[in-house]
Amino acid sequence: MKIGILGTGMVGRIHATRLAELGHTVMLGTQDIEKTRANIKKDAMGNPPFAEWHKDHQDITLATFRDVAKDADIVFDALKGEVAVSVLSMLKSELASKILVDIANPLDFSQGMPPFLSVCNTDSLGEQIQKALPDTKVVKTFNTLNAYLQVNPAQLAKADHDLFICGNDADAKAKVAEIAKSYGWKNIIDLGDITTARGTEMLLPIWLRLWGALKTPLFNFKIVKE
Amino acid sequence: MKIGILGTGMVGRIHATRLAELGHTVMLGTQDIEKTRANIKKDAMGNPPFAEWHKDHQDITLATFRDVAKDADIVFDALKGEVAVSVLSMLKSELASKILVDIANPLDFSQGMPPFLSVCNTDSLGEQIQKALPDTKVVKTFNTLNAYLQVNPAQLAKADHDLFICGNDADAKAKVAEIAKSYGWKNIIDLGDITTARGTEMLLPIWLRLWGALKTPLFNFKIVKE
Repeated sequence: MKIGILGTGMVGRIHATRLAELGHTVMLGTQDIEKTRANIKKDAMGNPPFAEWHKDHQDITLATFRDVAKDADIVFDALKGEVAVSVLSMLKSELASKILVDIANPLDFSQGMPPFLSVCNTDSLGEQIQKALPDTKVVKTFNTLNAYLQVNPAQLAKADHDLFICGNDADAKAKVAEIAKSYGWKNIIDLGDITTARGTEMLLPIWLRLWGALKTPLFNFKIVKE
Repeated sequence: MKIGILGTGMVGRIHATRLAELGHTVMLGTQDIEKTRANIKKDAMGNPPFAEWHKDHQDITLATFRDVAKDADIVFDALKGEVAVSVLSMLKSELASKILVDIANPLDFSQGMPPFLSVCNTDSLGEQIQKALPDTKVVKTFNTLNAYLQVNPAQLAKADHDLFICGNDADAKAKVAEIAKSYGWKNIIDLGDITTARGTEMLLPIWLRLWGALKTPLFNFKIVKE
């Protein structure tokens, strides 16, 4: 498949790398190609600038948000939560009728650590995106765990932990679940329509505290049931 | 120990029953003893009125909120989230220096199902209670799963799932963890101070959706880590 990923940060790069390994044609989308290539600064987490990373990932194409949204069969939202709705709204026509895999979380770091959610409880980023792009099939998933685990769940407990999936379109969820299975996911819980994205985004506060308590981001939730 | 439980609903009754089984002297607290005894209606979930339940639990004493708070060594908050802060604020002097085990969740059913949280993200019910009762050692726990599982975790996967505990006082958390262990808990994760209660209360939205998706409330979160 031709898969587009909006956002050139670590989450986007990690999915791009994995999807390319799995044989897909992968495009990474950015606002301004030249600016992304010219950046020489590490990000806030100490990850290398795009150009340095890209040297080892020449099979992945860098393109504009618009070209990625236009050309890809399926598009991932790996944007920062704070800009996701505004960037995606500009791509409304390109994304119409397509599946958008929304990995973003509405984290607000403006008041320091730990971040707050900029939307929650009675609304969610997933719902805001679905509302802004009514003709797009928004599927919220992958947003409840570390990006390395998102694309390679078997590195933890033989993948015996859970991925949540939310969205209004059953076929779209099934297609995204196939991608997740190709990553190695065995346990995928369909929570229901896109309003259930509230629940997954609201996992972030405990996720962040668990990172502190466990001293590692390499953990995940497993739902134990009868 | 002499343990007091504020709230005569199912959560309070379930803890009271279990604590009495474990040999504690248990008091259940209510606003108005006569009204609680005289009530003949089932609750919204179809549970029997207090008097009917109490016939089989004569070892548990019914008393006023104030008498329970005054006499007990340790007090459980099993009140409805919407009244918890106002009821507890009236018991400030009785609860001073005591441990308060806060099981309540700030659920708002005023707009139907699923309920919203009346406080979240930048604050929590646990923090509001700690702020209202600065001399009380508030320990938030048990609020992230079904009440029957709270008091008997071994009925699910030999108790191989997790209980979260939050609070500012390490000794108080250790004492409450001892009670949890006497219930059968093996995995107890200390998330940190009372601000981490935000994370556990914000689990409620996904908990409610999982109940819908799994068709049973008898499940719990397990944190899978390296």
